[in-house]
Amino acid sequence: MQDIILDDKLHEECGVVGVFSGNPDITSQLIYYGLFALQHRGQESAGIAINTGGKIQFHKNMGLVSDVMTSDVIQRLSGGIAIGHVRYSTSGGSEIENAQPLVVRYKNGTLALAHNGNLVNADSLRNILEDSGVIFQTSIDTEVVANMIARNANGDVLKSIKNVMEIIKGAFAFVIATEKQLIGVRDHFGLRPLCLGQRPDGGYLLASESCAINAMGGEFIRDIEPGEIIIIDENGIESIKSSKYAQQKSCIFEYVYFARPDSTIDGVNVYQSRYNAGRILAQEAPVKADLVFCVPDSGTPAAIGYGNELGIPYGLGLIKNRYAKRTFIEPSQELREEGVKTKLSVNKELVKDKVVVMIDDSIVRGTTTRQLAQMVRDAGAKEVHVRIASPPVTHSCFFGIDTPFRSYLIGANKSVDEMKDYIKADSLHFLSMEGLIKSTGSDRGFCLACLNGDYPMEVPKFD
Amino acid sequence: MQDIILDDKLHEECGVVGVFSGNPDITSQLIYYGLFALQHRGQESAGIAINTGGKIQFHKNMGLVSDVMTSDVIQRLSGGIAIGHVRYSTSGGSEIENAQPLVVRYKNGTLALAHNGNLVNADSLRNILEDSGVIFQTSIDTEVVANMIARNANGDVLKSIKNVMEIIKGAFAFVIATEKQLIGVRDHFGLRPLCLGQRPDGGYLLASESCAINAMGGEFIRDIEPGEIIIIDENGIESIKSSKYAQQKSCIFEYVYFARPDSTIDGVNVYQSRYNAGRILAQEAPVKADLVFCVPDSGTPAAIGYGNELGIPYGLGLIKNRYAKRTFIEPSQELREEGVKTKLSVNKELVKDKVVVMIDDSIVRGTTTRQLAQMVRDAGAKEVHVRIASPPVTHSCFFGIDTPFRSYLIGANKSVDEMKDYIKADSLHFLSMEGLIKSTGSDRGFCLACLNGDYPMEVPKFD
Amino acid sequence: MQDIILDDKLHEECGVVGVFSGNPDITSQLIYYGLFALQHRGQESAGIAINTGGKIQFHKNMGLVSDVMTSDVIQRLSGGIAIGHVRYSTSGGSEIENAQPLVVRYKNGTLALAHNGNLVNADSLRNILEDSGVIFQTSIDTEVVANMIARNANGDVLKSIKNVMEIIKGAFAFVIATEKQLIGVRDHFGLRPLCLGQRPDGGYLLASESCAINAMGGEFIRDIEPGEIIIIDENGIESIKSSKYAQQKSCIFEYVYFARPDSTIDGVNVYQSRYNAGRILAQEAPVKADLVFCVPDSGTPAAIGYGNELGIPYGLGLIKNRYAKRTFIEPSQELREEGVKTKLSVNKELVKDKVVVMIDDSIVRGTTTRQLAQMVRDAGAKEVHVRIASPPVTHSCFFGIDTPFRSYLIGANKSVDEMKDYIKADSLHFLSMEGLIKSTGSDRGFCLACLNGDYPMEVPKFD
Amino acid sequence: MQDIILDDKLHEECGVVGVFSGNPDITSQLIYYGLFALQHRGQESAGIAINTGGKIQFHKNMGLVSDVMTSDVIQRLSGGIAIGHVRYSTSGGSEIENAQPLVVRYKNGTLALAHNGNLVNADSLRNILEDSGVIFQTSIDTEVVANMIARNANGDVLKSIKNVMEIIKGAFAFVIATEKQLIGVRDHFGLRPLCLGQRPDGGYLLASESCAINAMGGEFIRDIEPGEIIIIDENGIESIKSSKYAQQKSCIFEYVYFARPDSTIDGVNVYQSRYNAGRILAQEAPVKADLVFCVPDSGTPAAIGYGNELGIPYGLGLIKNRYAKRTFIEPSQELREEGVKTKLSVNKELVKDKVVVMIDDSIVRGTTTRQLAQMVRDAGAKEVHVRIASPPVTHSCFFGIDTPFRSYLIGANKSVDEMKDYIKADSLHFLSMEGLIKSTGSDRGFCLACLNGDYPMEVPKFD
Repeated sequence: MQDIILDDKLHEECGVVGVFSGNPDITSQLIYYGLFALQHRGQESAGIAINTGGKIQFHKNMGLVSDVMTSDVIQRLSGGIAIGHVRYSTSGGSEIENAQPLVVRYKNGTLALAHNGNLVNADSLRNILEDSGVIFQTSIDTEVVANMIARNANGDVLKSIKNVMEIIKGAFAFVIATEKQLIGVRDHFGLRPLCLGQRPDGGYLLASESCAINAMGGEFIRDIEPGEIIIIDENGIESIKSSKYAQQKSCIFEYVYFARPDSTIDGVNVYQSRYNAGRILAQEAPVKADLVFCVPDSGTPAAIGYGNELGIPYGLGLIKNRYAKRTFIEPSQELREEGVKTKLSVNKELVKDKVVVMIDDSIVRGTTTRQLAQMVRDAGAKEVHVRIASPPVTHSCFFGIDTPFRSYLIGANKSVDEMKDYIKADSLHFLSMEGLIKSTGSDRGFCLACLNGDYPMEVPKFD
Repeated sequence: MQDIILDDKLHEECGVVGVFSGNPDITSQLIYYGLFALQHRGQESAGIAINTGGKIQFHKNMGLVSDVMTSDVIQRLSGGIAIGHVRYSTSGGSEIENAQPLVVRYKNGTLALAHNGNLVNADSLRNILEDSGVIFQTSIDTEVVANMIARNANGDVLKSIKNVMEIIKGAFAFVIATEKQLIGVRDHFGLRPLCLGQRPDGGYLLASESCAINAMGGEFIRDIEPGEIIIIDENGIESIKSSKYAQQKSCIFEYVYFARPDSTIDGVNVYQSRYNAGRILAQEAPVKADLVFCVPDSGTPAAIGYGNELGIPYGLGLIKNRYAKRTFIEPSQELREEGVKTKLSVNKELVKDKVVVMIDDSIVRGTTTRQLAQMVRDAGAKEVHVRIASPPVTHSCFFGIDTPFRSYLIGANKSVDEMKDYIKADSLHFLSMEGLIKSTGSDRGFCLACLNGDYPMEVPKFD
Repeated sequence: MQDIILDDKLHEECGVVGVFSGNPDITSQLIYYGLFALQHRGQESAGIAINTGGKIQFHKNMGLVSDVMTSDVIQRLSGGIAIGHVRYSTSGGSEIENAQPLVVRYKNGTLALAHNGNLVNADSLRNILEDSGVIFQTSIDTEVVANMIARNANGDVLKSIKNVMEIIKGAFAFVIATEKQLIGVRDHFGLRPLCLGQRPDGGYLLASESCAINAMGGEFIRDIEPGEIIIIDENGIESIKSSKYAQQKSCIFEYVYFARPDSTIDGVNVYQSRYNAGRILAQEAPVKADLVFCVPDSGTPAAIGYGNELGIPYGLGLIKNRYAKRTFIEPSQELREEGVKTKLSVNKELVKDKVVVMIDDSIVRGTTTRQLAQMVRDAGAKEVHVRIASPPVTHSCFFGIDTPFRSYLIGANKSVDEMKDYIKADSLHFLSMEGLIKSTGSDRGFCLACLNGDYPMEVPKFD
Repeated sequence: MQDIILDDKLHEECGVVGVFSGNPDITSQLIYYGLFALQHRGQESAGIAINTGGKIQFHKNMGLVSDVMTSDVIQRLSGGIAIGHVRYSTSGGSEIENAQPLVVRYKNGTLALAHNGNLVNADSLRNILEDSGVIFQTSIDTEVVANMIARNANGDVLKSIKNVMEIIKGAFAFVIATEKQLIGVRDHFGLRPLCLGQRPDGGYLLASESCAINAMGGEFIRDIEPGEIIIIDENGIESIKSSKYAQQKSCIFEYVYFARPDSTIDGVNVYQSRYNAGRILAQEAPVKADLVFCVPDSGTPAAIGYGNELGIPYGLGLIKNRYAKRTFIEPSQELREEGVKTKLSVNKELVKDKVVVMIDDSIVRGTTTRQLAQMVRDAGAKEVHVRIASPPVTHSCFFGIDTPFRSYLIGANKSVDEMKDYIKADSLHFLSMEGLIKSTGSDRGFCLACLNGDYPMEVPKFD
C-alpha cells in the first residue's frame, strides 16, 4: 500500500560510474563513493568490476551499495580500471542474474559492461543473435550488447563498439572496462546522462551525474556528448564522435525529479532549474496564501522559488520521518492512515487556519497528492492549493524510466479540472511545457516524450 | 571518524509510549507507530510489553523499531494495555540486557516499566537495596526503580509509585503497565517530556512527544505535569499531583535539537520556537549576505527564520544524501574528505561567488562545523558566516542526555573568537540565552544547565 | 511432524562446564570445547560467564555453541574463572531471557550461576521471596537460587550456598563463578551428573559429563558426590559434604540415552552399560534372526551387544542422512513418507528377505518405531522383531528431563502386547528393570522414577 | 587446520536429479528430497530448474539444500519437468555464478542443464567457440556444453546433444530439462553414475544414486548405460545408445567412499561391497586383536566385515560428535589437540589395554590417520593396527573428483612401510587391487586411475 500512496514517482533505473586511476589501492573505494552518491538512481542491486593485473574480477549482489560493497569486498578488489553500477529496475526482472556489471570472456579478452538505459530493439537483436547460435543467461539488454561487441571484436574492440552503437536503438549510457581501457558511450540523443571528471591525482572519472564526480573527489570536466565514445587509457583521453545522427535530447525528468539537486547535467544545474520552475509556476498560477511548503524532499527548490516570487513565507508544512526508508509492517484496515503517517506528517501548528500552497515536482498517479491534501486539511488549513512544478505525465517512457501503464497515469486520463476534483484541492495548476523548458535556461533539446508523446525514435506500441 | 565529524550533536537517550486501548487487536500496532515516530530519540534498541489476558508479555531487541517489531511480533502480541520504548544510550552499556521495557513479577502481580531519563541517586539506592539482599541483572536505573516499587507494593502499587517518586532524584518520565492500568509519571521538574492523547475510539495514549500521539491516530490532550502521576484504567483517568515540590524545568534542548519539529512540548511548538530562534538570531547578529542555508536537517526552521528576518534568500547550500544513515566503509587516509561527502555535499552552483550564512542549531565539539565551512569555501563561496541558533554548550547533562566530557565541549574551552578561528569562519555568532528563552514564547521555566551550569538539583561531580 | 515421528526421545535439559585456569588466555576456548562436547544435552541456547579482572562478563544467546560462541566472543573474553551452559528446555519457556549463565550483582560482589536440573519447590520459594519484595525477570529456577544465595551472603557466599542447598528440593548440578572461586554443587541424590577433572597445566575443570573433561584436554578425577559442594580457588580444592541426607540416585536415563557413549558417570561407563544392556536383552528375549541393526545412532552399542550374544550378524539396516539435523520443509500430504526418509532410510539390499531384529534404546511415544518397522517391512524383510534396551517409560520426570504428558507415553497406556500390535512388529520385547540395573554393573542407587514411578522425593501431582 | 586433519578424503564434486512428473504440485518437493539424499555429493551450492507452463524458472544459491530450497521457493516453483543439482567443487571456483543448473535461452527454446563430472577438453572447445564470437560468463564446463548444444540445435535438440556427446571428452552425467523433455546423458565410460526410477504415480526419476530414487518415493529401474541418452516425454521413455565406443568404467571410488551405503550403482550394492572389502582385507591382512573399530562413519561396513571374518568383536572405538559439521573457532596453538577432539573422540574405556584394529576406507594425505592412531594409543590401547579397505591413492583424478596434487598424496610418495612409520601404527595394510575388485562382485569394468594411473582416456599432464 505504501508504495502506491507514498511513492508516487517515476523511477530512474540505473546509475553508472567508472574510474581510471593512477592509484590501484583507492580505485574500489572511489567506485564505492561514486555509487553511494548515485544510490538514489537504483536501490535494488549494486556491483563493481575491476581490472586486477589484467584479470577482471567482479562482485555484485542484491541490496544497497553499503550492503553489497563491504569493507572486505573493497579491500579484496584493487586495480587501476573499474566500473560500478546501481540498479533499480523491474525491466528484466528482479534477480541476482540481472545485476550489473556484466563480465564476459571472449576471444580477445575480457570485458565488463554497465548500462543505464533501455534498448527498444533489443528483442530483435536477441533473435538475430540466437539465429547464430548465441545463448542467453539473463534477461537484460546488456547481455545482447556484450554479445554483439564480442562477436565483432576481431582484435579491435573500439571498432566493434562503434559498429554496435550504429545498430542498437534506444537510450544508453555505457561504461566499459577492458584490460587496458575505460570506455564511456552515450546514445545519439544523449537521453541518459554521462559525464567526465578528473581527480587531483590525475585519475579520470565517469559518472551518470556530476554529484558522483564530486563524491569521488574529482572536478567535473564535461558531459559526454550525444553519440560520443570516450576512451581512457595510459595515453590519455580519446574521443570518437558519431556526428551524423547525434542530436541532444536530454531527459527532462532528470531535472524534474531524478537527479540530485547538486548535479549539473548537460549544462543545466538541477537545483537552479527546479528553483526557476517554482518561480515560473508562481508567475503562471499565483495564489494569495499564508504559507508555501513542499512535499519532501524533491519539491523543496520549487517551493522556495514559488514563495520567493510571490513573497509568501516558505515553511515545513510536511515533516518527513528520517527513518521512513525502513521497511514497514502492513497496517491493518483500521490503521491505514497511521500507516501513511509513518513517512510524512503534517506540521499542524504551522498550517492551522492558513491558506496554504503545497508544491510537488510531479504527479504520476495522484494518490499521494490526494492523501496529503486531505491530511493538511484535517490539520486545520483553511484552503489547500496544489501546484506541480512540471506538466502532467501522460505517456510511458521507453528509455530506461520505470513508468506505470498509461491507464494508471492520472494525467493521461483526467483533465486538470477532474484532477483537482479527485485531489480535492481548492485549486490545482501544473507548470506549462514552455515554463518547464524555460526553467532549464537551456536551448539544447530535451526529450519530453513522457509529457507530450513526442518520442525521438520509434517505440513499441504495447501500452 | 564519521561519528565525530558528522554527528556533532547531543543525543536524547530514550522515547516512551503507552496505550490503553478499547481494541486489543490494534494495540501492538499503535505501539509500533508511536515508537516509529519517536525513532529519532533512540536507535539502539526497541521493545514492547503488553498485557495479554492478565499476563504481561514482552519483546525487545537491539535494532531499529522496524527491525525489532516485525509483523510476526505484532500479530503475536495483542492486549488492551501496552507500553513501548526506544533507547539510544551508552549509560548502562549497550547490551540486550539493558533494553526496555523491563518486565518484573513481584508478589502482587506483574509490572512493565519503560523509562526516559536518568537518576542521579541511582547508585545510592542500588547500594541500599543490595544491603537488603536485592540482586541486579542489568546496569540500568530502571531495575532500581522496579525493585523499589515492588518492595513497597503491599497490594497498592500506586501508593508505592508515589513513595518511590519522593525518593528517586533526577529526570524521569515513566510509562508503566500493570495488569489493569496504564500509568504515566513525570519527575518534579518535568525535565523529560510526556504527554497524553486520545484516539477517536476512546483509547488513551501516552508519549514522549506529541508527534507520536498524532502517529498513533490520537488527539493531543495535554502534557503530564511536573510531579504528576496519571493513572488510566477501565474507569477513566485519575491524576495524582505532588504539588509541594513540583516546578517546571523543561529541557531546553528538546526545542533546540531533540524533538521532532511537528511536536508541541509543554505548550511550546518545536518548529515555531526554532523559527523564532532564527529570527531573533538575525536581529542579534545580522549579516549582509546573498544566501542563507542550514546544516540539514535540524537547522532548517532557524535558517528560514533568519533569512526571512533579513530578506536574504534561503536555499539548499548543503545537500544531504538520503542514504546517509547507512553504515559505511572506513575511508582510507587519502579519501578522508570523500568519506565526509557521503553524508553531506555542497551545492556548488548555488554557493559559488556568494556571501553565505550557514545556520546550525547547536555546536558540541565544533568539528563538523569546521569541516563544512571549509567545504563551502572550497566550493567557491566568497565569505562564510556561521550562526548558531543556541548558546554554546558548556556543561554536561545528568538528566538523560548523552553529553561528551567537558574537555570535548568546544563551548567550555574556547571563547567565541577562538571558536571562530578554529572553524575558520568569516564571522561566528551564537544566539543569546535571552534570545533562546524568548524564542519559545513561554514563561514557564526551563532547565538550561548544559548552557549555564545551573542544575535544578545536586549532580555528581565527576566531570 | 518430523519431531513426533523421528525424534521420539526424552530430552536432557542442560549441560554445564566450569574452568579454573592457570592461563586466562585459553579459558574461554576451554569453555567452548567443553560445551561443544555437551551440545547433545541442549541445543537451544548457549552461554559463558567469565571473571575478567574481578568483573564478571558474560555472553549468551539462542543457538548452538558454534553460533553463540564465535571467534570474536572468545577473543574478547579472557580470565581465569569461567562457567558455561547449554540449554534445551521448554520449562521456563524458550526465550533469550532464560538463557544461562545468570549473572547477578549483589551486596558483596558478583555471581554467575549455571544450572542443570529442575527444582520441585521453586514456586514456593519464589512466593516466599516475593513476599520479601523480590522481583523476578525470568521464569527459570536459577533466578530463585541466585536470589536466595545473594540474600544470605553476608560476606560468606559458601555458607550461603550451603544453607540454600538445604532449602531447595529437586535435581540440581550447579556451577558457580565468583570473583575468586569456581564452585560445583550436586543435589543430595546426585540426580544430575557433575564431575571434576584436571588439565596438564594444573587447571581444574567441572563438567556434566566426562567426555567434556576429555574435550577440554583434562584427565577425569572423580564425580562430585551427592550433596557435595566443591570449591576451587587459588589454594586448591576444598570439599564440603552434606552427609546427613546424601544418597546416590543417579538418573538411569543418562545411561539409556542422554549421555555420550564415551562418558563415564558415577563409575559406570555409558558405552559399556549400553552394550551390556544389549547382551542381557538378548538373553531375556532371544530371536533366531539373520540380521540385527539399530535405530541410529543411540541404539548402536545395544545392537552390537545383542548380536554378539546370539551370534547374529550386526549391520547397518537403517542409514542416517548425515545432514538430517538441518531444518526441513514441511512435506505435503502426498509426500509424507518421503519426508521421513530425509532422516533415515532403509538399506534395502541388506534387509531384503531376512528375519531382522531392530534395536532401539527406548520408546517414548512409539510413533517412530511403528514407522520404521513399516519401512523395513516394505523394503522386503521377512520378519521384523523389535527389541528395546530399557523398560517402557511410564512416568513423567520432574528432575530436569523434558517428558511428554503421561497420556502420550505409550508405555503408560498400553501393555507390551498392545504396543506390539500398534507397532506391527512380529515380536516386541523390552529389557527388564533388573536387566537394566545389571547392565550398569553398579550397586549404587539409581533414580528409576520414569520407569516405575518411584520418585526419590515428593513431586507435583499435575500429570 | 581441521580440514586437513579431519577431512582427509577425496571429494565427489556433484550430484544431479531429474523429475518428469504427472503431478506438477509435487515436482519441486521431489527435487528437494532427491537433492537432500545426495547432499553428501556436494555442499557448496544447490539449485533447481523447473518447466512452469513452457517457461523454465530456476533458483540456485550457495549453501546446503535446506538453506537454498526453502518452503517459499518450493511453493513458488511448480511444473511437470525439473532438474536439480548440488555442487561441491573448487574447479571453476567457488562463486554463485558457477552454481547449477545452468538455464539458457537459445533460438529454439530454453534449456536447463546440470552436470556431474569434468571434461578434459573443455578449454579447447571454449577456445573454438570464442573464435566464433561466443562469450562466457562462468568458468564451468557446463556453459561450454550449453553453447555447443544450442548452436547445433536447428530445431532438433536431441540430434544436437548426440553430436555434442561425440565431441566432448571426459566424465559426464547430464540431466537436461527442455520445455517438453527430461533428458539424461552418461559418458561413454559411465564414469559418473546416473540411474532411472519410477514413482507409483507414473512419474519418472533420474538421479546420481539410487538412494535418491528411494528418497523421491520411486522404485529403481536401471542404470543409464555408458554412452546412453535417455529421453522422457509425454510418450514415455526413449533410449539412444552410442554403441561404438561405449565401455563400462565405473568409478571405483563411488564404492570405496563417495556413494551412500544404501545405493546400488551399476549393479553393485555399495554397503555390500564395503562389507566384502572388510572381509577380504581380513583374509589378506589378519591380526590377532581384541577389538575392531572404524573411523566414523564411512569405514563402518568394512570394519564390521573385518571383525566378522576374524571373529574379533566390533565396537565404537571412536565417537563422532553429532554436531561436528558445524563451523569452528580456530584453536590456539596450545589447544590444537582439543580442536581435533571436537569432531572425534576416543572411547577410552573401550580401547584401554586392548590390541585394536582401526579400519578406514581410504587414506589420502595420511594426516588424520596419524592423529587418530596417536589418540587411540594415548587412550591406553596396547597395539594399534591400521587397515585400509582400498589400495593407496597414487594419482589425481580428472573426471570430477577433487584430488590434491600428487605431492600431497601419501600413497604416491611413500611405501607402505614408510607410511606405517609416519602413522606410527603397529602394522598397516591396504586392501589389494584384486581384493577391491573382488569386493564389488562385479565383472564389469572400473576406472581405477586414481589407484594405478591407468586413465581410460588421455588426460592433462600438469600434475
